[in-house]
Amino acid sequence: MSSYGDKIKLTVFGESHGEGIGAVIDGVPAGYKIDMDKVLIQMARRAPGKDRTATTRVEKDFPNVKSGILNGVTTGAPICCIIENTNTKSGDYANLMDKPRPGHSDYTAYVKYGGHNDIRGGGHFSGRLTAPLVFVGAVLRQILEQKGIRIAAHISSIGAVEDTPFDPVNIDNQLIDELSASGFALIDKEKEAPMREIVESARMNLDSVGGTVECAVVGLPAGVGGPLFEGIEGAVAKAVFGIPAVKGIEFGKGFAATRMLGSENNDEFEYKDGRVVTKTNNSGGILGGISSGMPIIFRAAIKPTPSISKEQTTVNLQTGKTDTLVVKGRHDPCIVPRAVSVVEAVAAIAVFDLL
Amino acid sequence: MSSYGDKIKLTVFGESHGEGIGAVIDGVPAGYKIDMDKVLIQMARRAPGKDRTATTRVEKDFPNVKSGILNGVTTGAPICCIIENTNTKSGDYANLMDKPRPGHSDYTAYVKYGGHNDIRGGGHFSGRLTAPLVFVGAVLRQILEQKGIRIAAHISSIGAVEDTPFDPVNIDNQLIDELSASGFALIDKEKEAPMREIVESARMNLDSVGGTVECAVVGLPAGVGGPLFEGIEGAVAKAVFGIPAVKGIEFGKGFAATRMLGSENNDEFEYKDGRVVTKTNNSGGILGGISSGMPIIFRAAIKPTPSISKEQTTVNLQTGKTDTLVVKGRHDPCIVPRAVSVVEAVAAIAVFDLL
Amino acid sequence: MSSYGDKIKLTVFGESHGEGIGAVIDGVPAGYKIDMDKVLIQMARRAPGKDRTATTRVEKDFPNVKSGILNGVTTGAPICCIIENTNTKSGDYANLMDKPRPGHSDYTAYVKYGGHNDIRGGGHFSGRLTAPLVFVGAVLRQILEQKGIRIAAHISSIGAVEDTPFDPVNIDNQLIDELSASGFALIDKEKEAPMREIVESARMNLDSVGGTVECAVVGLPAGVGGPLFEGIEGAVAKAVFGIPAVKGIEFGKGFAATRMLGSENNDEFEYKDGRVVTKTNNSGGILGGISSGMPIIFRAAIKPTPSISKEQTTVNLQTGKTDTLVVKGRHDPCIVPRAVSVVEAVAAIAVFDLL
Amino acid sequence: MSSYGDKIKLTVFGESHGEGIGAVIDGVPAGYKIDMDKVLIQMARRAPGKDRTATTRVEKDFPNVKSGILNGVTTGAPICCIIENTNTKSGDYANLMDKPRPGHSDYTAYVKYGGHNDIRGGGHFSGRLTAPLVFVGAVLRQILEQKGIRIAAHISSIGAVEDTPFDPVNIDNQLIDELSASGFALIDKEKEAPMREIVESARMNLDSVGGTVECAVVGLPAGVGGPLFEGIEGAVAKAVFGIPAVKGIEFGKGFAATRMLGSENNDEFEYKDGRVVTKTNNSGGILGGISSGMPIIFRAAIKPTPSISKEQTTVNLQTGKTDTLVVKGRHDPCIVPRAVSVVEAVAAIAVFDLL
Repeated sequence: MSSYGDKIKLTVFGESHGEGIGAVIDGVPAGYKIDMDKVLIQMARRAPGKDRTATTRVEKDFPNVKSGILNGVTTGAPICCIIENTNTKSGDYANLMDKPRPGHSDYTAYVKYGGHNDIRGGGHFSGRLTAPLVFVGAVLRQILEQKGIRIAAHISSIGAVEDTPFDPVNIDNQLIDELSASGFALIDKEKEAPMREIVESARMNLDSVGGTVECAVVGLPAGVGGPLFEGIEGAVAKAVFGIPAVKGIEFGKGFAATRMLGSENNDEFEYKDGRVVTKTNNSGGILGGISSGMPIIFRAAIKPTPSISKEQTTVNLQTGKTDTLVVKGRHDPCIVPRAVSVVEAVAAIAVFDLL
Repeated sequence: MSSYGDKIKLTVFGESHGEGIGAVIDGVPAGYKIDMDKVLIQMARRAPGKDRTATTRVEKDFPNVKSGILNGVTTGAPICCIIENTNTKSGDYANLMDKPRPGHSDYTAYVKYGGHNDIRGGGHFSGRLTAPLVFVGAVLRQILEQKGIRIAAHISSIGAVEDTPFDPVNIDNQLIDELSASGFALIDKEKEAPMREIVESARMNLDSVGGTVECAVVGLPAGVGGPLFEGIEGAVAKAVFGIPAVKGIEFGKGFAATRMLGSENNDEFEYKDGRVVTKTNNSGGILGGISSGMPIIFRAAIKPTPSISKEQTTVNLQTGKTDTLVVKGRHDPCIVPRAVSVVEAVAAIAVFDLL
Repeated sequence: MSSYGDKIKLTVFGESHGEGIGAVIDGVPAGYKIDMDKVLIQMARRAPGKDRTATTRVEKDFPNVKSGILNGVTTGAPICCIIENTNTKSGDYANLMDKPRPGHSDYTAYVKYGGHNDIRGGGHFSGRLTAPLVFVGAVLRQILEQKGIRIAAHISSIGAVEDTPFDPVNIDNQLIDELSASGFALIDKEKEAPMREIVESARMNLDSVGGTVECAVVGLPAGVGGPLFEGIEGAVAKAVFGIPAVKGIEFGKGFAATRMLGSENNDEFEYKDGRVVTKTNNSGGILGGISSGMPIIFRAAIKPTPSISKEQTTVNLQTGKTDTLVVKGRHDPCIVPRAVSVVEAVAAIAVFDLL
Repeated sequence: MSSYGDKIKLTVFGESHGEGIGAVIDGVPAGYKIDMDKVLIQMARRAPGKDRTATTRVEKDFPNVKSGILNGVTTGAPICCIIENTNTKSGDYANLMDKPRPGHSDYTAYVKYGGHNDIRGGGHFSGRLTAPLVFVGAVLRQILEQKGIRIAAHISSIGAVEDTPFDPVNIDNQLIDELSASGFALIDKEKEAPMREIVESARMNLDSVGGTVECAVVGLPAGVGGPLFEGIEGAVAKAVFGIPAVKGIEFGKGFAATRMLGSENNDEFEYKDGRVVTKTNNSGGILGGISSGMPIIFRAAIKPTPSISKEQTTVNLQTGKTDTLVVKGRHDPCIVPRAVSVVEAVAAIAVFDLL
């Protein structure tokens, strides 16, 4: 299913080179103001063609809202948004049906759908489907902000170059403002040059690179989530793995915590300004699956873009023989900068569904 | 919710020191033979008290099957299993209601449930609730085996000591047999001594250690799963984060892939014995959220047990002041060895629900 | 699935002659007092053996609460209740596997489960499975009452004998008290004698009779439910059809409204004591799927018990030939009086899930 | 929620006078041919303006398929269909926000959405939202037909004039063909004149009339559905109550069965042409919630259209006083003929979800 949610019901639809892509979301309450300019800012952050880390395609990702918002206010009925597809060069993808691209869904989708799926541009598996996700996230985060909950993410690494991580106990509003409007979101801006260098080097070598995105949800009150399968980690992970190319997620110290002692990893409680807080936040703001009131912090691993222009070995499903393939078309050597707004969006979706 | 599943509906119930714990699972088809001895082997692997890595409590985790299995065959009706609680020392937990344990759900559950949750032994948040998960997994994996799908996991690390990882393209049945019956599951058995040493050292210091569990699902045909929120990664992650103490998950190369080039990370396809396979399996057997026919491989990060006997700082919710706490009771200095069978169980649950 | 609910997750389990039957319900909030004596009153209303309208079996339907309620207060964790099976005479059902009873699930369950279902006493299809439903309803209605919502039902007809219907605009608390404690719930008690006469006559003729149950939910505030598939009618219908033997449901005037003019059927609005009310309540308290604040009124059709002692024609699945059957065992000639508490219970479940 | 389904996920969106209405359906398998002309026939049956039983509005209900169908074949990705709104006269509805129409959702939606819902033309509650339902049903029934399952319905009554009911044991293909293409579907065509007379009489009196629709699903194999909340009745009822104006549903003999003896109502089994069948079909093809292989038969009660031009009493939410209202605009004096295709559509949706 391309659907998510318990309290909300979200379905993302569309194929990369079909008539349009979009999303329908049911369960958004009535009476919330939605500033469409803020939505467009988020969509612009994800859109390709801004600079040389991204593909040169120019998508016009204008979201047509068909329902659920009237005069800038949610009506309580399902919100449907459609983005028409234009500027598609389907010819580039002609031979992919026969020769599946390594690292892509071509082969597995072929098996699942018996060859009936729309292969053009990756079809329903295209990274382009993250545009409606960003639309939905941009709507929901405005509602969350009206409840005091804010979300921001940054490029925490590209290849081996790492950005400074969030201070997990104290993330101020100015940083959130900056990051959540940036097209190349970094805490330490000096890391932009070396990161771009890695990406440019990959491009020159007809190759690609991956990276990680760190995301924080600030202002979520204590007591949200629950034990076992109701936990925040599971809900957020389910949403984040909905983004193509994500292969890992960790909360708080995550994998690093496995090498710590309990006495190092446990976050001690204390009273501060009359509120219960933890001195550290190794748990990423989640204990027993439930929010502690500290920032929710997680990190997503994004694999290097599988579409590379180097020659690769693959199978020819038509001839039944091993063959070679050179992927044509315009591809991002690194999708991590664009993925930042997508990670924020699905975090908003997951948190909204939990409330 | 303590519930999981789309095609199956699983609910885990019970509190650690209440009358009993158990699980109900709806949607298991009729006519499958279930060998209860095999179920008991899995439950014994999880049970505490086997050796010094675990608590000295002796739980009698005998699963009483109340419905859904008749004469060793599934009837198609919901399966309910209950494990009666015995040998509980509730007195040890008397002051936890006032002074929440760092790293535990005590505080967050207190907020969520307004103090009405059963705090004794961790209540519904206790690691003891993984016993019914192992029961359910042990039933479902027998059905999966009848479809040619096998599951095994091992301790891939405790602290900094790492076991040899699975060969991701070729996992033979003998290894699966050995691991899935072992109480201290390792590929390289020479790692047992140094791992036990780390655990024993933590115990002597009234401390605890974490680790990772690597799990493989072998024999899943290509074409299972789907795009976006239907992906295998999201389904498995949701299930695995249902295990208390899990703080991260990665598939295939996972976080390591973020430092690789696309040309290194992409798994090239080839024909082998007439079947389409990949030469490497960095994707962990999943492309576009769909199984490729290669083994599904993932790794879960398990934080050090939060229950440690060292004095820690916490808050006293009664007095409204910062205070200290020494946690009493019997606790595992390392739950990773016992967690292996739990990870296998939730993997079985997730895969069963996907089919 | 034997599962129900969006906000709550209810699963009913067990087979009539297995080890036990019961229910697990997840999603019940913490902190509500549950009076177990009130629960037992509801279960006694459903239990057989009270008088000659019912079977002579004596079931000891004592509900063992295994989790989720501590010291008479909900903990927020799933509530599991088990009723052990005793006093079962399995021998009576020996030949049903070969010769399915007309009007029963024997044949259809045989097809669905390939003969692996537990046929004894109807197995998972037994009317006995309504006992855990009554338990769950009896718990949830106590929570609803703490929110000012009350539920009552009565035998609105047995055969052609009809009870006086509810006054749909004004149902007083005294009537609700009386009905919801009665074992033969009627508004006009003079109808008891002629109704019992019909039932007794059916019994003497080795036959059975059906009837209808009318149910009212009072105190539900306006604004609950929603358009299309979110409507109250759909949610209540789904729950009520979960009761074996129900073959129809209508809200407000229901089928009779189809012969009325719009000007007769429309409920005009007016202000009364400062509140918006309707002068009539032909809609059964539901407009556009949403509660109007007036009582919710619905009527369920219960078919005559299919288990009759008259000789009937059926097939012999063993011989592949048409054959005859005389059903043995103890059976209710009319289940309508006992069904009243079950209808109230599922109404409570549906309303609780809507809130 | 405006969403339905377990195996499929359907969301209907849009407001009557907004930009567009439509539906998204996830979970439709790949590789099924869809004949769009057949879809348009079904949509034409529902469309208004055909004759004097319907409103004089001319809607151009052309369904734009945005995704999920490529070259007339399902791709396996979600299908999104949009119908643009044109020819809307919003001015007619200006005062409804203040003075809710009796029998309509105006008041209850006002309470639920705090006045933020789109009131124009009924908004998301408009009967116009059944157009996308018919689209979805028309797609799914083509897939069902490829599995041998056919659906047809007819006007079983308007006011007191009744059509001949289906022969429940034998419904031939020719009748199904005729009914499922008809704009005024009747088994006994002589009933058309008296039915139209009733409708015309209501129109002349500025009033409206209701009626019933009987629907049959033929070819569903035995063994579909399940006990308790998995039953066919509950699934179909949930879908059918998704149609605005439906206030009751009954399966097989339904309410009439409550006045029958068990020996009359039970359907005896026999072998016929080597297959197990029932001699009668009072159960409507469902025993224990599971299909028996006989036709599924149900009847839906449709209340008289609440929009009538007679003066009615209502409240003025602005002044807080009781007031009068004359509803303007173009309204159907009877929606039953148009509802036939909608009932067929939701039956297709429910059955598809069950398989």
